[in-house]
Amino acid sequence: MEYTKLKEIIGDEARIVFGDEIEKEYLTDGLNLEYGKADVLVFAENTSEIIEIIKFANEKSIPITPRGAGTGLTGATIPNNRGIILDVSKMNKVLELDEENFDITVEPGVLLKDIQAYVEERGLFYPPDPGEKASTIGGNISTNAGGMRAVKYGVTRDYVRELEVVTGNGELIKVGSRTIKNSSGLDLKDLIIGSEGTIGIITKATLKLIPKPKNTVNILISFDNLEEGVNSVINIIKSDANPTAIEFMEKNIVENSERFLGLKLPSNRGNAYLILTFDGEETEIITNYTKAKKAALSSGALDYKVLSDTEAIDTWQIRGALASSVMEFNEQVPIDIVVPISKTSEFVEFTNKCGEKHGLQVIYFGHAGDGNTHVSIIRNGLEETEWKKKSHALAEELYKKSYELRGVPSGEHGIGLNKSEYYKKVTEKINIEYMKSIKKIFDNNNILNIGKVYS
Amino acid sequence: MEYTKLKEIIGDEARIVFGDEIEKEYLTDGLNLEYGKADVLVFAENTSEIIEIIKFANEKSIPITPRGAGTGLTGATIPNNRGIILDVSKMNKVLELDEENFDITVEPGVLLKDIQAYVEERGLFYPPDPGEKASTIGGNISTNAGGMRAVKYGVTRDYVRELEVVTGNGELIKVGSRTIKNSSGLDLKDLIIGSEGTIGIITKATLKLIPKPKNTVNILISFDNLEEGVNSVINIIKSDANPTAIEFMEKNIVENSERFLGLKLPSNRGNAYLILTFDGEETEIITNYTKAKKAALSSGALDYKVLSDTEAIDTWQIRGALASSVMEFNEQVPIDIVVPISKTSEFVEFTNKCGEKHGLQVIYFGHAGDGNTHVSIIRNGLEETEWKKKSHALAEELYKKSYELRGVPSGEHGIGLNKSEYYKKVTEKINIEYMKSIKKIFDNNNILNIGKVYS
Repeated sequence: MEYTKLKEIIGDEARIVFGDEIEKEYLTDGLNLEYGKADVLVFAENTSEIIEIIKFANEKSIPITPRGAGTGLTGATIPNNRGIILDVSKMNKVLELDEENFDITVEPGVLLKDIQAYVEERGLFYPPDPGEKASTIGGNISTNAGGMRAVKYGVTRDYVRELEVVTGNGELIKVGSRTIKNSSGLDLKDLIIGSEGTIGIITKATLKLIPKPKNTVNILISFDNLEEGVNSVINIIKSDANPTAIEFMEKNIVENSERFLGLKLPSNRGNAYLILTFDGEETEIITNYTKAKKAALSSGALDYKVLSDTEAIDTWQIRGALASSVMEFNEQVPIDIVVPISKTSEFVEFTNKCGEKHGLQVIYFGHAGDGNTHVSIIRNGLEETEWKKKSHALAEELYKKSYELRGVPSGEHGIGLNKSEYYKKVTEKINIEYMKSIKKIFDNNNILNIGKVYS
Repeated sequence: MEYTKLKEIIGDEARIVFGDEIEKEYLTDGLNLEYGKADVLVFAENTSEIIEIIKFANEKSIPITPRGAGTGLTGATIPNNRGIILDVSKMNKVLELDEENFDITVEPGVLLKDIQAYVEERGLFYPPDPGEKASTIGGNISTNAGGMRAVKYGVTRDYVRELEVVTGNGELIKVGSRTIKNSSGLDLKDLIIGSEGTIGIITKATLKLIPKPKNTVNILISFDNLEEGVNSVINIIKSDANPTAIEFMEKNIVENSERFLGLKLPSNRGNAYLILTFDGEETEIITNYTKAKKAALSSGALDYKVLSDTEAIDTWQIRGALASSVMEFNEQVPIDIVVPISKTSEFVEFTNKCGEKHGLQVIYFGHAGDGNTHVSIIRNGLEETEWKKKSHALAEELYKKSYELRGVPSGEHGIGLNKSEYYKKVTEKINIEYMKSIKKIFDNNNILNIGKVYS
């Protein structure tokens, strides 16, 4: 049988599952909308197994779909109807905490929330904060995940020092370095970050940490409408208020989330809200949020509320559940287009008009501080063929517009399977060709996550 | 004649110089120690010319050595005894300042000091601050230049949003994006950054800016010896004092620089010094330098002096001239090894012993806040053969040691020509092979900066 060798590699039968016995959740991603097929699901426990599996797959030309916690939203973990699903979620150990050099070394299957808890208990801080805390760090690195705190601290890419990777050719490489600076040869590390499992599988990661901020203050600002809210963002940033996070959301979607959770936002004025977070020393926070307040009020804010601890928890819960509260009741196409912040307003306006034109409901929320809008096209009971046709047409217009505005198709979710077609349409052919050539170097027999992103 | 076509491309005769008429400075770099040869020196004025020159060079298999201001310290701009020197220093225009999105778009030949002045006049700030301010931004990007302010703000890589590049194949590509986040396909931008002209020539760059910090305070701390100074750095960082810069220097080299400039350091206690900079709001600075003071005094500091404006200028002038004051009187091999900060002390100690063993004087100074030591091996009148042999043996030991300490050969200067041999010795063969394969994709006929870095 084709997969006998795989049994030898893994040994433990509990870590190999064949064909029909593979549970459905391993054939999809966080959206649970599309399902692929695979011949076998393998739970790897160490790097040597991954090397052997990849070498075996190369010999037999078997496609491999790498997988972490399966919380992605782009279909990157949906298998291509055959081959091996290579799950690294059992490789979930913290290997080393280096408090002198401010870094932590972990296996790829460690969950984001576990890293955050581990370092914060020790007075340290891992700043990247994607919405999905039950995602693996391997997945975060593979999508260059962003999240709430990117405004002040940057994204996952900014916190990866060194990676151990098994390439598609089955070679073990170390890329990056344990140092703060590095100007030594071509940057292979950043090629791996954001590559969505198309050129290598991350088996170990060293992440940069910072001292844990002493205090955190959250602010809720209300506006008459979303445009005013989004426009005030630029003034807040210009005011040098240095917020950690700036999120925006509209009343209609907030109400959805409020019902879903049984909670209430601490303000019911206006139709659009910004949530701001500030962290650091107390005096620094006060100076900063005073600057932001001035900027917001002069941009038309209706009120500016410093939240109590309980209010802050409720507000962030409501923000956190925006996506799932929509999914709970409805099918959606999630889009995480990012545009230059000055173009956010224009993009939101275009999205509105475009939704109307196609007769589809569109909601948006997201990271106002970095132009990363999360747009959801909502099905609302539309018949299957109609839904596919309309949502596809609308999505295509949005991607085209984002490109005109000097944006890119994805700010933090990645391209995966679902956006690959749009991505290839708006991206220069020459760039796609270079990516394909690079894939060929790292994955000569084209077995890793094929048909995804640029391939 | 072989280069007739080149004359057609350029038109203007003043921008082409042949053979013996090429001035010596174009055949070397900032060290002025080694000189190469070239057939022709071309001053490009726009991207189209660069595309045509590279296409021509591909047809005729002529090597190209790209060049900015020629301030590098690794021989990356020394031509390989034939071919074209492609100088971009005349492409020195600021193309666009976008104050809403906080970025600036420039040609590659704009000098770092000119960018800094341009944005600071407008209340904005470009944080990377390499020692050599008369370097071009194209060179800064090509070496991922670091500098003084990396402790707080990061390095050049962290401030590059989008690049326009002509690859070694003569194709024009745009890499990166104008957005803050990006998770869309393989990261070609970071492959170009730090590639030292081996895969493409940067023709345009969009750089991220931040609001200009309101205040800056400088501190001078004295220690009995360098080890104590370097060790206190970890405690200062752990104290969450968030300094912008932490530089260290020893008395013997300070005296050199003092004589050279006719200035005096505002402290003559002890034998080793740290210079700290803090920037931001006044209250924030005071909170932070108080934390740093506590950490420094508990680590054995002799004194902790807040500098007046004049004292700060003198101190930074002395720091800035450390390298040139040594070069003025002596030949040196500059090394910019970077190690994890916790290993700085061990590396400095090893360097001392190793210098003694080989009978060579070694001085060091540099960026203590990021483990990027600048070591100079001094000739002190040694006879040529002896000097080459000894300095080579010493350098080899230092590179080997840095690798053992999980460091890398260059923190910010790059590998260029001079360190290529050492670099290839301490770097895993498989990494070098991947780099060579990538070069082949971008520069199929191997014409760009050949024999440098990994090639």
